[in-house]
Amino acid sequence: MSDGFSEIASGLCAIARGFHARGWLLGTSGNLSAVVQREPLQLAMSPSGVDKGELKPEQLLSIDENARVGSGHAGKPSDESLLHLRIVKERGAGAVLHTHSVWNTIVSDLYVAQGGLNIEGYEMLKGLQGVRTHEHTEWLPIIENSQDMPALAESIAEMLSKHNDVHGFLLRRHGLYSWGETLAQAKRHIEIFEFLLETIGRSLHIHGKYTGV
Amino acid sequence: MSDGFSEIASGLCAIARGFHARGWLLGTSGNLSAVVQREPLQLAMSPSGVDKGELKPEQLLSIDENARVGSGHAGKPSDESLLHLRIVKERGAGAVLHTHSVWNTIVSDLYVAQGGLNIEGYEMLKGLQGVRTHEHTEWLPIIENSQDMPALAESIAEMLSKHNDVHGFLLRRHGLYSWGETLAQAKRHIEIFEFLLETIGRSLHIHGKYTGV
Amino acid sequence: MSDGFSEIASGLCAIARGFHARGWLLGTSGNLSAVVQREPLQLAMSPSGVDKGELKPEQLLSIDENARVGSGHAGKPSDESLLHLRIVKERGAGAVLHTHSVWNTIVSDLYVAQGGLNIEGYEMLKGLQGVRTHEHTEWLPIIENSQDMPALAESIAEMLSKHNDVHGFLLRRHGLYSWGETLAQAKRHIEIFEFLLETIGRSLHIHGKYTGV
Amino acid sequence: MSDGFSEIASGLCAIARGFHARGWLLGTSGNLSAVVQREPLQLAMSPSGVDKGELKPEQLLSIDENARVGSGHAGKPSDESLLHLRIVKERGAGAVLHTHSVWNTIVSDLYVAQGGLNIEGYEMLKGLQGVRTHEHTEWLPIIENSQDMPALAESIAEMLSKHNDVHGFLLRRHGLYSWGETLAQAKRHIEIFEFLLETIGRSLHIHGKYTGV
Repeated sequence: MSDGFSEIASGLCAIARGFHARGWLLGTSGNLSAVVQREPLQLAMSPSGVDKGELKPEQLLSIDENARVGSGHAGKPSDESLLHLRIVKERGAGAVLHTHSVWNTIVSDLYVAQGGLNIEGYEMLKGLQGVRTHEHTEWLPIIENSQDMPALAESIAEMLSKHNDVHGFLLRRHGLYSWGETLAQAKRHIEIFEFLLETIGRSLHIHGKYTGV
Repeated sequence: MSDGFSEIASGLCAIARGFHARGWLLGTSGNLSAVVQREPLQLAMSPSGVDKGELKPEQLLSIDENARVGSGHAGKPSDESLLHLRIVKERGAGAVLHTHSVWNTIVSDLYVAQGGLNIEGYEMLKGLQGVRTHEHTEWLPIIENSQDMPALAESIAEMLSKHNDVHGFLLRRHGLYSWGETLAQAKRHIEIFEFLLETIGRSLHIHGKYTGV
Repeated sequence: MSDGFSEIASGLCAIARGFHARGWLLGTSGNLSAVVQREPLQLAMSPSGVDKGELKPEQLLSIDENARVGSGHAGKPSDESLLHLRIVKERGAGAVLHTHSVWNTIVSDLYVAQGGLNIEGYEMLKGLQGVRTHEHTEWLPIIENSQDMPALAESIAEMLSKHNDVHGFLLRRHGLYSWGETLAQAKRHIEIFEFLLETIGRSLHIHGKYTGV
Repeated sequence: MSDGFSEIASGLCAIARGFHARGWLLGTSGNLSAVVQREPLQLAMSPSGVDKGELKPEQLLSIDENARVGSGHAGKPSDESLLHLRIVKERGAGAVLHTHSVWNTIVSDLYVAQGGLNIEGYEMLKGLQGVRTHEHTEWLPIIENSQDMPALAESIAEMLSKHNDVHGFLLRRHGLYSWGETLAQAKRHIEIFEFLLETIGRSLHIHGKYTGV
């Protein structure tokens, strides 16, 4: 393991433990990745089926652009590695994080018919990279869930080319994907979306519908 | 205490502390067990009436197939040891975990009239052993609560023989039981069910009824 | 400080930090006490106005039956010391704990007109000392809040003599009091009531009213 | 860095980590400051865009009354430094804390039309400096959010001169500001307001409207 890989792996584990404590990665759900090098692409990727509350740096896998595990790494990469690789390719992301929270699950279901939801008027939006004001309108797309990973990767790539300014998306009744140039930025984006989705979900409890936008 | 017992006891304590922190084992509620050996059966079992947030390996009791405490162990095993033993017998489980959460209590009450609830369409279901797709329908039985442990053990055995593919069940206004081949798998199953029951409970807040299935 | 006092003070601090983390003692609210000796009465009591998340054993005050601070202890005991002393006297309690949670505040307000609420049918009730079945009905009295501590102590004493089987009570829009023969039992009782009040409060969200009893 | 600055910086970091754990400073949101000296004014201020869950004392910036960063400190102070400085000036505050919680965001939106909300009848109010009884009525003003910091600072100053007894205020869909003579008092005030706003928000879930005042 290179020093660069080790450092990135430690960073991913710290985030995994923190998000697991918040209930965003329960039951071995969710996955995390970060770019170690670009040419040729090397991604540090969480393995399939491990407890994210106990993730250790030596469990992180090195995968290439075809999701093949590098030598010296044992384990099965997450089924969703293809989605991570596609987001890295389409967005030039340095890190991709995927959470399963109660609130992102609920909201992903409620707005699926309209293909996503607009979020606007919240100061918290300013934490999304490039956003300068709470008056910003953020489109959060929702994609129907599927077990066909290559097809899902295509749907995501198509959506990303159509909406080139989104900072994340939901998979219906599945979870949230967000990313960033760096791991810190990806973590920030996840925290912001989780906050906003909880705020929207709880507002729905009061109003019966989301009156936020 | 054998090395095998010690290691399993430590694993049970780590889970107990983590679940207590989440509010799933408050007020000395809930109990945890894992198989140390099969022939003759030896089960490491949490004692009755102890604070699960402070459970220590030396407090775990060794019990046999009749819930008798092994020599060298002092303390009273949980009243629900009979239920654990029955699940181990009927399912060949390697570990059985039982939690009392606010959400499993609420949902266990709401669906008791229909004997349980179907959960389907959630990606999180894929974490249940043997489930391959979110399109899976998981039947979560609800059994009326009772203080008659032998009778309750019979009801559970009868239900398990009728529904041989369930991964857990609810006792009405009491709590959740789940299990696994290993302790890690049992923990994963509890986290998944608790997540799904919270999601269903919170969806009920919005819709007035569960529209998930 | 005697060894007995030190040990009790450490136990109170551990509980204070844990309850503060759960949001039950925010903003320096709530207070905790335990009996060090009976004759003459010596009570270890949390001081007024301190952050319960950072409570240290040396901050605990020794008070006598008249709430006078013992020599060697500096600080002002909580205004509610009189209530603790009265509960110790009326119930022979070995420890008294008082929490301010969001759910106990909400429920204390909803049922004040009827003077309290019955809680029944929950397995969790079995954790209350002397309760043997979930079919138990627990009366949780609610007393109107007041800043007149001697008068409030009288109201509490009167209620306790009338309802000699209660395990706790609510002060309206103020908080929960519970107690036990030991500190561990008092902690268990608080966790049980907080669990049940959250369960009842969240059920109200679904049904519009508490249908539990 | 002076010893005084170091100690204050450590105190700010401990609060930042604790509030981040509660979900009140997610996504690098919120900011914290405390007065190091009055003449000339030196304020320890959290930098812009850092993860509050990992804030370290050496990241805190020293700023003067014009929000200029002192020598020996690298980094950009928060955009909202002007608001902190204004509150310090208008109130003589020793510390100013600003949180983004789900509940303060929701409540700030619901009562904006009436310019704020009255909170009364809660024991928790007694923790606000100078309040002696739960019968106190606390006015919590809500100011429309803006990215024009000098203008927002003026709005706040105007509001503070009009309502010279408030202990905090909300910015619409943005967050809560509170302060205190000391850092401990400011922390206490934030915990109290967050508790009360959650209580009010959850009561709205039950009643459809806030019936508390």
